[in-house]
Amino acid sequence: MKTLRIVELIKSDAVDCDVTVKGWVRTKRGNKNVAFIALNDGSCVASIQVVVELAKFDDETMRQIATGACIRVDGRLVKSPGEGQGVEVQASSIEIYGTADPATYPLQKKGHSLEFLRDIAYLRPRTNTFGAVLRIRHAMAFAIHKFFNDRGFYYWNSPLITASDCEGAGAMFQVTTLDLNNPPRTEDGRIDYSQDFFGKPCNLTVSGQLEGELGALSLGRIYTFGPTFRAENSNTPRHLSEFWMIEPEMAFYELEDNMELAEEFLKYLIGYALENCREDLEFMCKMWDKELIERLEFVLHNDFKRLDYTEGIEILKVSGRKFEFPCDWGCDLQSEHERYLVEEHFKRPVILVNYPKEIKAFYMKQNDDGRTVRAMDVLFPKIGEIIGGSEREADYGKLCARIKELNMNERELWWYLDTRRWGSAPHSGFGLGFERLLLFVTGMGNIRDVIPFPRTPQHAEF
Amino acid sequence: MKTLRIVELIKSDAVDCDVTVKGWVRTKRGNKNVAFIALNDGSCVASIQVVVELAKFDDETMRQIATGACIRVDGRLVKSPGEGQGVEVQASSIEIYGTADPATYPLQKKGHSLEFLRDIAYLRPRTNTFGAVLRIRHAMAFAIHKFFNDRGFYYWNSPLITASDCEGAGAMFQVTTLDLNNPPRTEDGRIDYSQDFFGKPCNLTVSGQLEGELGALSLGRIYTFGPTFRAENSNTPRHLSEFWMIEPEMAFYELEDNMELAEEFLKYLIGYALENCREDLEFMCKMWDKELIERLEFVLHNDFKRLDYTEGIEILKVSGRKFEFPCDWGCDLQSEHERYLVEEHFKRPVILVNYPKEIKAFYMKQNDDGRTVRAMDVLFPKIGEIIGGSEREADYGKLCARIKELNMNERELWWYLDTRRWGSAPHSGFGLGFERLLLFVTGMGNIRDVIPFPRTPQHAEF
Repeated sequence: MKTLRIVELIKSDAVDCDVTVKGWVRTKRGNKNVAFIALNDGSCVASIQVVVELAKFDDETMRQIATGACIRVDGRLVKSPGEGQGVEVQASSIEIYGTADPATYPLQKKGHSLEFLRDIAYLRPRTNTFGAVLRIRHAMAFAIHKFFNDRGFYYWNSPLITASDCEGAGAMFQVTTLDLNNPPRTEDGRIDYSQDFFGKPCNLTVSGQLEGELGALSLGRIYTFGPTFRAENSNTPRHLSEFWMIEPEMAFYELEDNMELAEEFLKYLIGYALENCREDLEFMCKMWDKELIERLEFVLHNDFKRLDYTEGIEILKVSGRKFEFPCDWGCDLQSEHERYLVEEHFKRPVILVNYPKEIKAFYMKQNDDGRTVRAMDVLFPKIGEIIGGSEREADYGKLCARIKELNMNERELWWYLDTRRWGSAPHSGFGLGFERLLLFVTGMGNIRDVIPFPRTPQHAEF
Repeated sequence: MKTLRIVELIKSDAVDCDVTVKGWVRTKRGNKNVAFIALNDGSCVASIQVVVELAKFDDETMRQIATGACIRVDGRLVKSPGEGQGVEVQASSIEIYGTADPATYPLQKKGHSLEFLRDIAYLRPRTNTFGAVLRIRHAMAFAIHKFFNDRGFYYWNSPLITASDCEGAGAMFQVTTLDLNNPPRTEDGRIDYSQDFFGKPCNLTVSGQLEGELGALSLGRIYTFGPTFRAENSNTPRHLSEFWMIEPEMAFYELEDNMELAEEFLKYLIGYALENCREDLEFMCKMWDKELIERLEFVLHNDFKRLDYTEGIEILKVSGRKFEFPCDWGCDLQSEHERYLVEEHFKRPVILVNYPKEIKAFYMKQNDDGRTVRAMDVLFPKIGEIIGGSEREADYGKLCARIKELNMNERELWWYLDTRRWGSAPHSGFGLGFERLLLFVTGMGNIRDVIPFPRTPQHAEF
């Protein structure tokens, strides 16, 4: 007999048939004649009720069926007379796969704090909350691949180990096979990197964009979706040292096309979640964030407001609002500014464009005004910036001049510059932090709670 | 007017309409009245022919249209009178986006060796071969996600940075933010890792499996698909220092289920390639591997032969074949043995099971015979082992005993062992090297040619 997952059993119309169900015991309750086991197999937030007539089973088996135990139940799927579930399983036999001693197993019935669960991150996927979060994480990852595949984008793997720190997007982790206790040294006493694995110092990438541009300028439209690393010593609910990033890059896309793609992309993902993760979202809404579904619908059904950074600054200045940080022209916007524009002024997501060049990266296309670049940031309620992107500078001369102006190492970027030397094309792209997206879609407040094994300063467990 | 990609134009039935087409010049030929430009935008291996009546265009524009230049053409899509293409574009106007000086641009018309292209890996996606390989790479990645999503598996991100080297699958890269020239030291002169970013020595993962098992024992069925690292100093056509791996892990799957999944998975991927990448496969077949499509069909249409390692050894011993390496019971099979079984003896893919425990990893389920484990390797024509997996040892006592026997560090594995302490379940999984798969599907011979930016000893360019 084929084992069905619980998500399939619950949605199945077939009752009064024999079934096998396997999973972990969430709870066991009952009276002296009958026990009710809530059994969960991770396929959905709901558990299925297993009804056990105690007279048919020995005491030792029943004793071992405690929260966390893994069991197999053979029985009959029937309509449930009780409330809260459509079907239940009347057990005819039970096999214990693995016990969970109530004296030691940490995940007992009572609710646990997110802090406590973070300490046992290796077990927390067994809870309803993390089951829901990780299923939503999967659904969003799949939706990302599907969105791009359906639109003729090619998945592109930028390298993780890199010898250059060109974007300057953040502090980097060094990758080495040298013996740190006793590294080889050159005659002048410095580390002899010619003896390191790659023959030179290497780091973990902070962004796959520059290599992604090579992809766009050959395959047309590409996207990366891979791990990215930042070695900043930031202990905040919004930073991870290892996170996943999505970076589409498109030849022949100008800034307007880029904005349209970003808006379509975010709405697609949110629509996908609402359609495919309804039970998990409702659970997250009930347990963690009452306004979650409302907020998702809000973004889905409103056009994003597009405006210039300069106009945004003017709105902030005449708002009469007292902000913690300054908001003069030339300042990078803080979360408080972004949220004011989105949540209070426009009451919809905002795409801010044409930022001062001083606060944006060297590769962004320079506007004719000489002081702004064709950058775009997509600002969302609750979390502020969710996407950052730009049209890229396609002009070899302008790009070189900007690199010199910033005292960057032009020689390290030779391969990047070559793309503008030969067959350069207008092109654009943006970056979306996967876990930032998940904060928005799950309603969780701490980024460590939307990835299975968070890496942060002093934390690399499991 | 909407710009269509060339793949869409070529398949379009709409002729005699105005179109805009953007791409890179592959070749330009013609006579003194008319020029024929082969324009490619990376969306497919075919180029579209642009017909230019020279009288309508100035000499300077035409001079700039050289191999590698990027242009925009506005014109009329018409049925082509010539052979080899269904439609062509009659140019009414041409804009030059980016030139490519024939004196410097490395990718001229003539064929280039794969070695030469490896040196300019940042440009090689602009060639027909690497365009085809990278589009197939995308298709396979998408098919992997679709296969698992359709079957109720959740995408699971095992961490990249890890503090443990438990599997012992290979040499590791160290990850650090310490200043190697002047690292902090403890009183006894050793490196003071408490001052490193994570407070202890950390490495790049060699496998996401152990963490993946945590996922299976909570969400039921998961799969990883992410980068993996090995610091072995291997300069072979089959090894990369950074590669991508797919590792599904399933609760309630025994070895038989695992074999079935692996066979279904590989056939699905190959079938997907044959259905969705036909032009690219035909190109690879023509240029690089005449038997490619035949070999893919062969695997698709043959049941995989399943047999015990012990039987396999017997077949090898009575084969009368002189092998370079020994094939006594207890030896790990070499590529020559695997290929003999697949290509000569059974003439079909082979799944070999129940290997001697000494040559397999500690976490594999021990058979009752005391000397074999429930391992499985899937062996393919041309490349040998493509998948390695096993049912996992679910018994806490047996797992601990094996770890002790092997003198492994039990304390570092506490979190892994805990999964067998609480709610243990029968479970299985396997690993597929993504680039190994791509060698098979593209027909390429060197693994450095199926990833955009190969990392190997002494090589971390771009």
